[in-house]
Amino acid sequence: MKVRRSDRLIDMTRYLLERPHTLIPLTFFSKRYESAKSSISEDLAIVRRTFAQRQTGILETVPGAAGGVRYIPIMGEDEAENFIAAMSKRLSETDRLLPGGYVYLSDLLGTPSVLRQIGRLIATQYREAHVDAVMTVATKGIPIAQSVSQYLNVPFVIVRRDSKITEGSTVSVNYVSGSSARIEKMELSKRSLPANSRVLIVDDFMKGGGTVNGMKALIDEFNAKMVGITVFAEGKFDGDRMVSEYTSLIRVDKVDTKANTLHATAGNFLDQNRQLLEVAGQ
Amino acid sequence: MKVRRSDRLIDMTRYLLERPHTLIPLTFFSKRYESAKSSISEDLAIVRRTFAQRQTGILETVPGAAGGVRYIPIMGEDEAENFIAAMSKRLSETDRLLPGGYVYLSDLLGTPSVLRQIGRLIATQYREAHVDAVMTVATKGIPIAQSVSQYLNVPFVIVRRDSKITEGSTVSVNYVSGSSARIEKMELSKRSLPANSRVLIVDDFMKGGGTVNGMKALIDEFNAKMVGITVFAEGKFDGDRMVSEYTSLIRVDKVDTKANTLHATAGNFLDQNRQLLEVAGQ
Repeated sequence: MKVRRSDRLIDMTRYLLERPHTLIPLTFFSKRYESAKSSISEDLAIVRRTFAQRQTGILETVPGAAGGVRYIPIMGEDEAENFIAAMSKRLSETDRLLPGGYVYLSDLLGTPSVLRQIGRLIATQYREAHVDAVMTVATKGIPIAQSVSQYLNVPFVIVRRDSKITEGSTVSVNYVSGSSARIEKMELSKRSLPANSRVLIVDDFMKGGGTVNGMKALIDEFNAKMVGITVFAEGKFDGDRMVSEYTSLIRVDKVDTKANTLHATAGNFLDQNRQLLEVAGQ
Repeated sequence: MKVRRSDRLIDMTRYLLERPHTLIPLTFFSKRYESAKSSISEDLAIVRRTFAQRQTGILETVPGAAGGVRYIPIMGEDEAENFIAAMSKRLSETDRLLPGGYVYLSDLLGTPSVLRQIGRLIATQYREAHVDAVMTVATKGIPIAQSVSQYLNVPFVIVRRDSKITEGSTVSVNYVSGSSARIEKMELSKRSLPANSRVLIVDDFMKGGGTVNGMKALIDEFNAKMVGITVFAEGKFDGDRMVSEYTSLIRVDKVDTKANTLHATAGNFLDQNRQLLEVAGQ
């Protein structure tokens, strides 16, 4: 039975949102709704316009016999600025300050709406980077990796500091923990990352950059390629960071453990990514 | 400017999908699209019909001045059966068998499409359970907890076996690891779970049930209430399980470490939840 336009638009929207960065042939929709390709093209033009106006994302058209449409999630500049400002405010809350100048983040990194926004924001940055896998280190980086992986629609892999029997054979590297200058070890299941993968590193918090540096070494061991590093928050660090090129959404710029206060502000994300935050309108 | 119906339907669908289990007043949409409430009601009737037909979920209407609509994600029975059959097949793959009869799951639990389906399936089971928080234990349960939390739109909390400075003050319990009969310790950040919360426990794999039992003890320590236990896979266990009431999506029923083979089949999920898997039609 032929499906009405209104029903097609609703189901099409849902179908596309669940499959970001995936090429879907027009013939698929044509069959699904028993409708002519010309009608489907008109539908998609409406979806494209609404997605652009509401800054939901870009609906790319790939022409030709092997073509179709592809939904690319984007966060617009206004929404990105508002989100980062809101998070900076949350991270400045006094009761987040922990002994040693650490910051409590578990509530934010367990909240679905926050994770959706972090994921969409970081996926916007790497939307043209052809990422094959997102990498993070257990435990607190996982929610971020998973959310980015949903919006880029690629797998994520979890590096561990402790050995677990459930990972099978692993490859391990030693790394210098930047904050404490200790030698530590991290490992990744051997079968989790194919050679030549393009890997995006994400984490919740970066101080000296030692952990991120360890992940870079692991990527080399797998003969894979790192395409970028983005952390939710960077902390204050006195001395040379082990990583120079990275992106941070938030920067904790003042920590006073005596007065028990801290302050957070925007990281370098916005300045680095202005261009990518613009949704091409019609 | 008044927004056309087609544009409204697309944006409304997106808006609802991103906010499951959230009551949205009709006046919100009416303002957002500068359209009469009667038009919005008609729009929502179309969305409701399409969501039901495509088994996307239920669009609940709450009447009255404080009313509105609420999107409840559901997985239909057919899709649930197909997904569980597909996963059983994947879990029967010989190369997943690890020493000690463990099963390698990290690839599946790092794949966005698999996690979306697990999340939607478990959220279907607890859609009327008024869950306040999803609980799991680090590391491998996290992706499942996060995905369920997205579809129920409630926070998730991560119990840890190792102490980390970034969690602040914690509450800990000792528990007996069922598989190895060792006494171990797990802890949860004190501020992460309010008293009287209704908590859903999820995990990736259950053998003796010791870990799940530990989480039950933790929930008691927080004066919270457990509303259910659902695991992705249950393994073979000789002896009495420490947990009797639980749901499993998959059951690994045969493991032969000598011949290096294993076999998985459907767990008790489908039998327990037939009724909840039916999407109320028009």
